Amino acid sequence: MKNKICELFGIEFPIIQGGMIWCSGWELAAAVSNAGGLGLIGAGSMRPELLREHIKKVKKATSKPFGVNLPLLYPQTDEHIQVIIEENVPIVFTSAGNPKKYTSILKEKGIKVAHVIANSKFALKCEEANVDAIVAEGFEAGGHNGFEETTTIALIPSIRPITKTPLIAAGGIGSGQAMLAAMALGADGVQVGSRFVASTESSAHQLFKEKVIAAQEGDTKLSLKELVAVRLLKNNFRDQIDKAYNENATKEELIALLGKGRAKKGMFEGDLDEGELEIGQVSANIHKIKSAKEIIEDFMHEYREALSSLEEL
Amino acid sequence: MKNKICELFGIEFPIIQGGMIWCSGWELAAAVSNAGGLGLIGAGSMRPELLREHIKKVKKATSKPFGVNLPLLYPQTDEHIQVIIEENVPIVFTSAGNPKKYTSILKEKGIKVAHVIANSKFALKCEEANVDAIVAEGFEAGGHNGFEETTTIALIPSIRPITKTPLIAAGGIGSGQAMLAAMALGADGVQVGSRFVASTESSAHQLFKEKVIAAQEGDTKLSLKELVAVRLLKNNFRDQIDKAYNENATKEELIALLGKGRAKKGMFEGDLDEGELEIGQVSANIHKIKSAKEIIEDFMHEYREALSSLEEL
Repeated sequence: MKNKICELFGIEFPIIQGGMIWCSGWELAAAVSNAGGLGLIGAGSMRPELLREHIKKVKKATSKPFGVNLPLLYPQTDEHIQVIIEENVPIVFTSAGNPKKYTSILKEKGIKVAHVIANSKFALKCEEANVDAIVAEGFEAGGHNGFEETTTIALIPSIRPITKTPLIAAGGIGSGQAMLAAMALGADGVQVGSRFVASTESSAHQLFKEKVIAAQEGDTKLSLKELVAVRLLKNNFRDQIDKAYNENATKEELIALLGKGRAKKGMFEGDLDEGELEIGQVSANIHKIKSAKEIIEDFMHEYREALSSLEEL
Repeated sequence: MKNKICELFGIEFPIIQGGMIWCSGWELAAAVSNAGGLGLIGAGSMRPELLREHIKKVKKATSKPFGVNLPLLYPQTDEHIQVIIEENVPIVFTSAGNPKKYTSILKEKGIKVAHVIANSKFALKCEEANVDAIVAEGFEAGGHNGFEETTTIALIPSIRPITKTPLIAAGGIGSGQAMLAAMALGADGVQVGSRFVASTESSAHQLFKEKVIAAQEGDTKLSLKELVAVRLLKNNFRDQIDKAYNENATKEELIALLGKGRAKKGMFEGDLDEGELEIGQVSANIHKIKSAKEIIEDFMHEYREALSSLEEL
């Protein structure tokens, strides 16, 4: 029997590349899809016409299925949806919002829809919205995250019993061993973010990629919970946030400190001091920049090795 | 080939019951050991003579191996060590301190020693101290915890490559599926705390057990990081702590608020309002009080089912 996620999306391996702002353009998405996973264009950092350009490019670069990740927290979402429909994107991953709003519109056009959640309450909303797959993302994940702090190993066993919808685990999945662990918990596939940030084809700035592979345990922290909770790598900017918290900054002061364009500055332009560097805890276990193809091959090799070495008890 | 943890401790299944203050006396330890796991008496809440009494009782109640968990943060540790040696305890799990201090003293007496850590730095200290096993505990675990917040799925892949010492995963292990996940990550066995709090033989107050099985996602939080970080269940006392943080309480004010005896009051005496209720995130997935034997049987059944359903990819 074929894996549910492979079946659903028409891919070879149940590995979804997380659609990450500033890091996942058409080049990464195409490389992942060509290697047998599912590549996603991260639309969160793109204006609608730029998204259209990336979609056109990814279609030229791969004949395999690909998708777009669309966080539902930006003002241009309706235009993004329009571009996605016009360009015949086959798969959309939505996140950071209510799955009810766009799922039926997309599904009417024959588009497969997955939605990212961080707790059971939103998993049930996904069910009601009739999504094709649910991504359950744990506390250890990079970037925007839930505020309840439920980790992947606690979250997947909460979600699995309440839904029959294909389930994708995210957060802390940086190796084939972790992929196998997610499958043991009941997931049907995995979404991988941080590991792909430090890939050759990622659009992250080279300096950010190098910072990611140098990251150590404890270097990331879930921060700015009063605004939108986001896991950030330690740098001068995050030190400023910590300082602001120590000085009991108000929400307005935090908003002012964050300002605009920090994520682009850090991850895309390589300003490691003043930029916002979004990455997961698993960065501590990433030591080398690799091509997307190598990453997927490593995952599958590690998955198979780990599977064959599991003990019958 | 026999499992390394089973081999090391002479037990049937690589499931260690966490030695938890106020919840794990001789009755729970004996029940777990009799069911084929490794039961631990939690010495943290016991004066030395009470510990001796529990050791004597557990020896009467089981002929199987058992152990004592000894957090190294209390003033009477030397006396506890003395009792452990005099009473011929075969296995000791130390935690919350430096493994170098007592490991060699215990090992000279033929006692097997495991030490609990939450990061790679302390895993290397365990190596230097020549412990027999390392317990790596993730952020999702209940009770006292590391301040770096590394979760089990991120932590085990950090620790596994740097040590050949048998490795036990802790934090978020509430089912056989989670046990299998830990093994997939590279652990040789698991330590299970929260699930055993809500067991028939646990010495936790009945009201606390009922509170644990009623816990929902997001109900626990790692708190009091300025003192000793501890994961607590939401109740009136934790609300007071949160309020104190919102009002920018000093460390001294937090110490005063905590006072003395809160853990006993909550977990042992059943004062759910004013007591400190230590439990892991996985409490959200625990819905029934069961006997230790049932818990271990369920784990092994779930482990085997999950193992047989893992997909070859």
